[in-house]
Amino acid sequence: MTITVYGYSGSTYSLVLLHILKELGLSYELVQPSSFEEIKTPEYLATKHPFGRVPSLTDDGFRIYESRAIARYLINKYQGTKTSTVLIPSDVQKAALVEQFISVEISYYTPPISKLVVQLVMMKRFGKEPDLKIVNEAREELDKVLDVYEKLLEGKDYLTGEFSLADLLHIPYTFYAINSAGEGDLWSKRPNVSRWWKNISERECWKDLVTEYKLAA
Amino acid sequence: MTITVYGYSGSTYSLVLLHILKELGLSYELVQPSSFEEIKTPEYLATKHPFGRVPSLTDDGFRIYESRAIARYLINKYQGTKTSTVLIPSDVQKAALVEQFISVEISYYTPPISKLVVQLVMMKRFGKEPDLKIVNEAREELDKVLDVYEKLLEGKDYLTGEFSLADLLHIPYTFYAINSAGEGDLWSKRPNVSRWWKNISERECWKDLVTEYKLAA
Repeated sequence: MTITVYGYSGSTYSLVLLHILKELGLSYELVQPSSFEEIKTPEYLATKHPFGRVPSLTDDGFRIYESRAIARYLINKYQGTKTSTVLIPSDVQKAALVEQFISVEISYYTPPISKLVVQLVMMKRFGKEPDLKIVNEAREELDKVLDVYEKLLEGKDYLTGEFSLADLLHIPYTFYAINSAGEGDLWSKRPNVSRWWKNISERECWKDLVTEYKLAA
Repeated sequence: MTITVYGYSGSTYSLVLLHILKELGLSYELVQPSSFEEIKTPEYLATKHPFGRVPSLTDDGFRIYESRAIARYLINKYQGTKTSTVLIPSDVQKAALVEQFISVEISYYTPPISKLVVQLVMMKRFGKEPDLKIVNEAREELDKVLDVYEKLLEGKDYLTGEFSLADLLHIPYTFYAINSAGEGDLWSKRPNVSRWWKNISERECWKDLVTEYKLAA
């Protein structure tokens, strides 16, 4: 078994995959494109990702792109073979609730938080000024979303009650929003959301990634 | 078994669920909220969908919201019990490719097409003028996405080769873009995309929905 991830160690969606691989106890090789131009070349589009994005993955010659699809593939194929971590339960109703919160993450959480992180972290890395109108609108939107999360997490340690792929998918963007964008008060002022963030960000596999790829630097 | 769908017969995401229920041979009751205000009331948020959206579904007391999560739940639980239609295959690699194209649909196809349909169809229904800047940008973006689809669909009748949930999720927005927004040339000018649209829009279950809910009117 040879798993190769094409992506950047600092990219949120690549980090999701690396985290899953560690939770499942799988070894991998990370191949980082040499430049942002590389992922738009005809060769890359034809062999890695037709929309010119990262990450993609090959597993013994089987190629797949789009992080959430790769996540489900790795879980379907390898969950339970090397570690006991359950990211998608086999019970149909429990699995449905994991999918429900994955859709909540995609539809309501990630749109505003990704705007915040792009403006306050990524633009800075490229020496550009953030657009404060976008920042303020994104912060307002995220504030409302986190009000709903505060209710959803009442009496729970994780979104479905137990740690799952749904929680894991929230980690990289939230890590950057708190540690690099300085927006931690959005989480810390809400007791349930704050407890949830502590639970998911203290996963050993995630802490290993933060150290290995120097994410806090 | 009693399945209740809370949604609107004209809403794209509700139609996705109704189409899946028909493909799986399941009967259902559709409960349509009395107004757009109803889905924002504290009672609706507490019992149907915490973000104030449609659709949601109950199946013998089990409640779930978010259409793509509901889709997977219905397929996991009922696929193969009433009809032979396969929307997600059991083979791990084939299922992974279905998930890949679901993510392509969410990430690249639906963002521009939903803007087109909102501006050219939904705004009109509410007696408002479309924002032509948004329309033009969305059309340009969709044009590029469909260029990639044209390559992906080379020599194939469906996105993964066989009809699946990934194809099905494209139907309602595309139906409105072609039949209500008058944007059909975007599909008809591309031979592979055009063949694909013919294949998926001629599913008997979809045609039944178009008639039953008078979608073409």
